[in-house]
Amino acid sequence: MSPRQPDPAYDIIGTRPPRFDAADKVTGRAVFGADVKLPGMLCGKILRSPHAHARIVFLDTSRAAALPGVLAIVTAADLPRAEDRTDVLGEGTVNYKYQSDSTMASDKVLYHGHPVAAVAARTETIAEEALRLIRVEYDILPPVMDVAEAMKANAPLLHEHMITKSLAKPGMRPSNIASHFQHVLGDLEAGFAQADVVVEREFRSVTVHQGYLEPQVTVAVWGPDDRITLYTCTQGPFDIRSQVANLLHWPMSQIRVIPTEVGGAFGGKNTSFTDVPAALLARKSGRPVKVAMSRAEVLLATGPTPGGIIRVKIGATGDGRITAARAELWYEAGAYPGSPVGAAANTMFAAYDIANGQIDGYDVVVNKPRMGAYRAPGATPANFAVETLVDELAEKIDMDPIDFRLLNCAREGTRRLTGTLHASIGVYQVLQAAKQHPHYGAPLSGRNRGRGIALGFWTNWGAQSSCLIHVNSDGTVALVTGSVDITGTRTSLAMQAAEILGLPLDQIRSSFTDTDAIGYGNTSAGSRTTMATGIAAIKAAQDVIAQMSERAAMLWGVPSGTVSYHKGTFTCSADHSLVAFKDLAGQLGHSGGTVTGNGNVNVQDWGAGCGLHMADVEVDPETGKVTILRYTTVQDVGRAIHPGQVEGQMQGGATQGIGWALYEGYAYGADGRLLNTSLLDYKMPTFLDVPPIDTVIVEAPWPGHPFGVRGVGEVPIVMPPAALGNAIYRAIGARQSCLPMTPATILESMGVI
Amino acid sequence: MSPRQPDPAYDIIGTRPPRFDAADKVTGRAVFGADVKLPGMLCGKILRSPHAHARIVFLDTSRAAALPGVLAIVTAADLPRAEDRTDVLGEGTVNYKYQSDSTMASDKVLYHGHPVAAVAARTETIAEEALRLIRVEYDILPPVMDVAEAMKANAPLLHEHMITKSLAKPGMRPSNIASHFQHVLGDLEAGFAQADVVVEREFRSVTVHQGYLEPQVTVAVWGPDDRITLYTCTQGPFDIRSQVANLLHWPMSQIRVIPTEVGGAFGGKNTSFTDVPAALLARKSGRPVKVAMSRAEVLLATGPTPGGIIRVKIGATGDGRITAARAELWYEAGAYPGSPVGAAANTMFAAYDIANGQIDGYDVVVNKPRMGAYRAPGATPANFAVETLVDELAEKIDMDPIDFRLLNCAREGTRRLTGTLHASIGVYQVLQAAKQHPHYGAPLSGRNRGRGIALGFWTNWGAQSSCLIHVNSDGTVALVTGSVDITGTRTSLAMQAAEILGLPLDQIRSSFTDTDAIGYGNTSAGSRTTMATGIAAIKAAQDVIAQMSERAAMLWGVPSGTVSYHKGTFTCSADHSLVAFKDLAGQLGHSGGTVTGNGNVNVQDWGAGCGLHMADVEVDPETGKVTILRYTTVQDVGRAIHPGQVEGQMQGGATQGIGWALYEGYAYGADGRLLNTSLLDYKMPTFLDVPPIDTVIVEAPWPGHPFGVRGVGEVPIVMPPAALGNAIYRAIGARQSCLPMTPATILESMGVI
Repeated sequence: MSPRQPDPAYDIIGTRPPRFDAADKVTGRAVFGADVKLPGMLCGKILRSPHAHARIVFLDTSRAAALPGVLAIVTAADLPRAEDRTDVLGEGTVNYKYQSDSTMASDKVLYHGHPVAAVAARTETIAEEALRLIRVEYDILPPVMDVAEAMKANAPLLHEHMITKSLAKPGMRPSNIASHFQHVLGDLEAGFAQADVVVEREFRSVTVHQGYLEPQVTVAVWGPDDRITLYTCTQGPFDIRSQVANLLHWPMSQIRVIPTEVGGAFGGKNTSFTDVPAALLARKSGRPVKVAMSRAEVLLATGPTPGGIIRVKIGATGDGRITAARAELWYEAGAYPGSPVGAAANTMFAAYDIANGQIDGYDVVVNKPRMGAYRAPGATPANFAVETLVDELAEKIDMDPIDFRLLNCAREGTRRLTGTLHASIGVYQVLQAAKQHPHYGAPLSGRNRGRGIALGFWTNWGAQSSCLIHVNSDGTVALVTGSVDITGTRTSLAMQAAEILGLPLDQIRSSFTDTDAIGYGNTSAGSRTTMATGIAAIKAAQDVIAQMSERAAMLWGVPSGTVSYHKGTFTCSADHSLVAFKDLAGQLGHSGGTVTGNGNVNVQDWGAGCGLHMADVEVDPETGKVTILRYTTVQDVGRAIHPGQVEGQMQGGATQGIGWALYEGYAYGADGRLLNTSLLDYKMPTFLDVPPIDTVIVEAPWPGHPFGVRGVGEVPIVMPPAALGNAIYRAIGARQSCLPMTPATILESMGVI
Repeated sequence: MSPRQPDPAYDIIGTRPPRFDAADKVTGRAVFGADVKLPGMLCGKILRSPHAHARIVFLDTSRAAALPGVLAIVTAADLPRAEDRTDVLGEGTVNYKYQSDSTMASDKVLYHGHPVAAVAARTETIAEEALRLIRVEYDILPPVMDVAEAMKANAPLLHEHMITKSLAKPGMRPSNIASHFQHVLGDLEAGFAQADVVVEREFRSVTVHQGYLEPQVTVAVWGPDDRITLYTCTQGPFDIRSQVANLLHWPMSQIRVIPTEVGGAFGGKNTSFTDVPAALLARKSGRPVKVAMSRAEVLLATGPTPGGIIRVKIGATGDGRITAARAELWYEAGAYPGSPVGAAANTMFAAYDIANGQIDGYDVVVNKPRMGAYRAPGATPANFAVETLVDELAEKIDMDPIDFRLLNCAREGTRRLTGTLHASIGVYQVLQAAKQHPHYGAPLSGRNRGRGIALGFWTNWGAQSSCLIHVNSDGTVALVTGSVDITGTRTSLAMQAAEILGLPLDQIRSSFTDTDAIGYGNTSAGSRTTMATGIAAIKAAQDVIAQMSERAAMLWGVPSGTVSYHKGTFTCSADHSLVAFKDLAGQLGHSGGTVTGNGNVNVQDWGAGCGLHMADVEVDPETGKVTILRYTTVQDVGRAIHPGQVEGQMQGGATQGIGWALYEGYAYGADGRLLNTSLLDYKMPTFLDVPPIDTVIVEAPWPGHPFGVRGVGEVPIVMPPAALGNAIYRAIGARQSCLPMTPATILESMGVI
């Protein structure tokens, strides 16, 4: 924890109150999706393809339907014809034709775990037996399991008519490349010509999963009046409503999504997986249906985040100026287009001021589940590539790695390789804070030890948020939003409202509600909630003060506009009448009704965050095992509303990045079947693997938010692989180019095996 | 059903769409209190006094506490010291000292069924065994079971220091009369002096219960962060929150009340019975606790509605003008002050224009549970008294009973005996409609048959309501209120909003939500919801149109104020640009965020309703059995938003009034114990007892509501006893003066037994 002092300008912003949801969560009282139980509820189960790529030749559910206790069976035939239309939804895009196909395979299965049918039965045992009784005959096709294979001329095609977007020209043949884009800035060749040193490497990474604790679960009720209610664990209840509405061709007004508490999401719970099967089973059976995924189903068939191939080349002058950068990224889309390769390209060089560059990005379909978002989607492998080469450049011109980055760092007004100009951004402040941190200057003695750093950048998001503040007659208030709390935002939003209202935090009740009870809000993702829903909360609080000032003026019989408010007291400037918030609250009912402050916003003015991670490691040259000795994160958060929660995000993101760096990865067999479908085999870091993570909060306030808030949650997952890779290089002298950096890949990089 | 035509002025008002909640309720999908199940939930049970009046000498819970599986025991010692303060809450008043005592007896028990302790255990069996292990020693006191007994000079006192309010003078002795009030208008003696005919009788009635199907139930969660969540079946979630906050001395912001569906209420679910015991058990046990009443507990210890004694005297001239009226009412309060005698006095003569009168009302405590509201609280026995005498007057001066009432009926501007002036009121229209109804002119032949009518009046209520309308991007909207739907108000509120918005009803989702998610609203009672929350819904809909008009102006770049809206289309008066509601809704997100229309109101301008019931009966002179041959209700409803629901209210109220007239009543033993604690012994009418009930809707629009709505739900319970009593008189020639009019009382009135 950094020795940060509270900001004297604020009463509540910058303090560390207990999280509103903490007690419920640590004592088991919080209601998650799996806790929802309704009278007469059935158990829904999904039959999944055992093959990675196959044509469905024959599907017969009659034996399952005849099993006593089976009340409904659903297949792709129960889904309406899907529109070939793409919406921006969640943290990416949704094409309903593809999502419909992924929800329930029609002609082909495209990944191991692809849903083929679903049943609802009185008990789990009956449901599982019913799955066994469904007959499916497959015509097995050769699977395509990585981007290099997928792009070969003779590769089997997942989608036989798919033509690469943006490269499409007459006569072009279908391929597995869904799309290609290119960013060009300046003169690439001239840039490299100015360079004294040029470094270039190819990097590979594999599919990883967000690893949230709570599997997806939906409880669906489909009333005989054709109104649907879905209890579901999601980051974005309104996005789930949109997806269900579009997949079922149902009006939004007939669908109520009640978000439960969420046991981890990290980008993986924007997409609807269990909602549509549960809803259709509920409709057919006439009973509530719960569809809860197992851990294996989560790993097999939700939206992990892609591996791929990244080739990067960077040149610099001998005195340390980067002159040119070139990147090519081939990202796995999974079975349907839509990898986060675009976001990776947008941010990979954004911490630097580079005059000449080119980035080419490719979205490549392979026989895996459609990839989803994972904390700064796409950025981590790209940062691993860029920061490894930046480290190498600094080494080659014999410059301190922080000084090299300070010399090249982006500032407000710098043009990015994507063409846009940077707004306010704290890269310089982060680098200065890192340089001054005791960790950077601390001696690191001992053999096979090394220190590495990595700088990272990630854009925030704004978008739509809704907040209402209802004034109670005892002077307390209820704040409610449409933003699911996945990171402690009940607390950080209430703190912002409390600061505006001048009320103690314990007089604010803070919660999120369902899609019936509040206006549309985008998903809790993209580091947006404390920032954008914060602006909605501030607006709602200001609306409360404005309405109550009007009411005070009315009650006093003074002109509207003569009443001002400061820290709990309304004052009339004309006659100096005073009334406390609490006392005026008690009079609202009888003077026209209570007051509800409304804040619906679409925040278009969003910023970006950046950070630097610093790691000391020791590598066992015999086994390749990496031990992290010390780890420090420095991050520009704009303004830390709740420093404790901000530090939690920095530590949590770093921990997940450490897992990605050293341990995690999907392992597929040659037949395209996933081999590690449990958390025993899919290795995530534990307390034994992660040291205490020191945090340094840098505050370069974002001018688009009244308190200066920037998004915090995503930046810290960007840098761990690069920071650890650079530390490993300093320890053993071998550059790393594969994620995860397992003992095997490290020994290989050393030439030992 | 009346042959009513839809009003051409409206598209939706006056139509009969299916109720939004109907399908869920008839198919068992609706979630009532008893359906709520939470992980780790305990069963809470309440130990109740077997005595009607006793002092608690000794209370030992240690043996129960030692029983394995018992996790918490609560007694009065767990309640904070209660304030002696009275709030207007629900449909009456709440004195927290008395309510605290009634929730858990401290020194004395005052009624059979009075809670003494509560336990929470792993199972119902263990909880019941624990109740048996609690040792209570009582010093039994003589019970006081009716108002006549209670007012005797030597009557045992329930509250030893209670001095009659409003009669209190120095040296006055404590009594069981909690309060007395008096209304005087004109010159009573002079009025009677002008009369040619004077009639006078004394009427008696017994305690009756609302008879809702669903017993009270609360599931309470008390988090380790001291936030309380209550799932409860109530008419008024905000009132429950107030009661719990005041009984536990807890801030409102720490209490969330989630109202479930309600299985009948009729005034009986404004008061908190199970919430505080459940909350305290949850706090002590650290687990969710469900406290569900049994039918016996409901009858023993909720809030039935009082019996009492009513003496009325009315005089009229020979040509049919009422000259004076005098009434004395002694109403049972139950164990604590607060019977609805005031409301009875306010309304009993209000259908008439009477220049001289006096009413004295007495609130008398007896050893029964504290009385609650029941559909037009207090009015039914008073109407029985007044309308029996009005019938007798008309008979004595040989005038048609409707003509007699037409001659004396109240109109706008008439001064009531309570001193206030009538606003718009449809008594005259109701009488005219009744006179013209075929039932009134139909011949009624056969022995022992008779036709009776009764006119009745009941005031409405306005008060606070809250409504929000959220616009979805597909052009549908979500309407949400804080008013629990006990009568189909999801539908009647959505219809009002749909009429304003010019949208088809199926594009509106309508629901009520919890106390966190919306501004304060008063309880769903007092015939207020369709009227007052309707005004809130209209205001919210108008706010949606205003905000969307602004948005259209912004998008078109035309001056604000040039955009108008009509039936689904926004039009610019300047350049005739058009945009459909649906299309503009789709553009809201990207032009500043979605739109939420807000309607918080405190409706002070409320009206009154009135009606006339007409009954044909046949009485078996051998057995005293009454068979209802034909029954017609005529009622001024202002404007029927949903005529089907209005007719349902008229029929439902009449049915309950028939039960009150002929069958229902609490039977207490001499020891004060309730004898009929099940619905086998407490006789309510069944389909076999009630004929089809014809309904005539009269519409004298209430000017305080944009569509003219008056409250509907309470009026129809007021008249059945009087209408049936008058019909019985016409059949057998004996006036009735006791409720219920059982075979025994009828034979007694005939002098047969």
